[in-house]
Amino acid sequence: MVKGLLIGEKMQKTEQEGRFEMIKARHKATYQTALLQGKVDEQMRELCSFIAGTKGFYTSSCCSGRIMLLEKRGEKKKENFFHRKWHREITKEELLEGFKEKIKGELWFKVEPFILHIGCKTLEDANKILSAMKKAGVKRGGIMIAQKEKFLIELQGTASIGLPIKKAEKELVTEQYLTHSVLGKANTFISNNYKRLKKLEEELSKDLE
Amino acid sequence: MVKGLLIGEKMQKTEQEGRFEMIKARHKATYQTALLQGKVDEQMRELCSFIAGTKGFYTSSCCSGRIMLLEKRGEKKKENFFHRKWHREITKEELLEGFKEKIKGELWFKVEPFILHIGCKTLEDANKILSAMKKAGVKRGGIMIAQKEKFLIELQGTASIGLPIKKAEKELVTEQYLTHSVLGKANTFISNNYKRLKKLEEELSKDLE
Repeated sequence: MVKGLLIGEKMQKTEQEGRFEMIKARHKATYQTALLQGKVDEQMRELCSFIAGTKGFYTSSCCSGRIMLLEKRGEKKKENFFHRKWHREITKEELLEGFKEKIKGELWFKVEPFILHIGCKTLEDANKILSAMKKAGVKRGGIMIAQKEKFLIELQGTASIGLPIKKAEKELVTEQYLTHSVLGKANTFISNNYKRLKKLEEELSKDLE
Repeated sequence: MVKGLLIGEKMQKTEQEGRFEMIKARHKATYQTALLQGKVDEQMRELCSFIAGTKGFYTSSCCSGRIMLLEKRGEKKKENFFHRKWHREITKEELLEGFKEKIKGELWFKVEPFILHIGCKTLEDANKILSAMKKAGVKRGGIMIAQKEKFLIELQGTASIGLPIKKAEKELVTEQYLTHSVLGKANTFISNNYKRLKKLEEELSKDLE
């Protein structure tokens, strides 16, 4: 019994000590599967693969930012559907094609910034991320989880375009408004978003090991 | 000289140890001045005053969330002007009055969620904030600064309405669109934002001392 207890204690201690390595290995595997399945946004691949290759960090979630037409069929998030989604600048024709297609709910035009979750083992490592984030001029982000061997940092760009454009059959705004007053701003936003992400990648590659 | 050195060392140590108390006292004074000058948003007053009264926490910046008409006269933030700004739900008449008034630049209709910066002394205290944030269902936020005796946590609601509505004299959308398709959503957003803030206040008052 004593022996059993000792082994149990030892196992528990090892488990505690190896918590980070275990979490990292799991997230790395998940990331590599997503990569093989083509589920990682192109603009995020280099950064996420770099992080997966470090000793002390992993990514648990990432999106490079997007322009989208979101169909809302209710108030809840699960009642939202991607009508169109692009991880790049888009053309007038692409936008109007999506705008014209029939929908049942309410259609929103939205841009969303990149979002990235990075995990690490210690507060010191988490501070490296915060420092790179500051140098890259990323304004939103911080340590969301701060536990023994489990630190999680969220980094995010900022966005500000979101508007309802159609309700079932009824167009709420004109094509002219969408293509002349909204589209250019959305494309500028998404292009700046990717530049910021590139800058973040540069800063992180200097500091993480 | 030796004596001098010793005194110097002692002073330095005391300074380091009292770093948090010094920062807190400074922010508390700034907050109380802002309060007297009526510069603290009404919906934030109770929460910020509670935090200022605790032993271990302070607020360094806060906004309760708002609906606004923002005039952009250039690409930079300093070229943006508040044309109208409300920290509450608004009426159709208020919106149209602001929409009709002459502007030079480009007018945007926007809603912004609450934002709150809370400072504390230790990682343990910072974790109390993160835990209250989670319980209150606040999705954005984290520890932005994690230094000895200086932890700063940002908490923020989420928003998604932002659109250009006028360019100099030219109205880009119709009054009908603004009052029927946008205003109701903005008011619902701001009302939910204040409910979330109230919930956060409840959770923080349970946990902070």
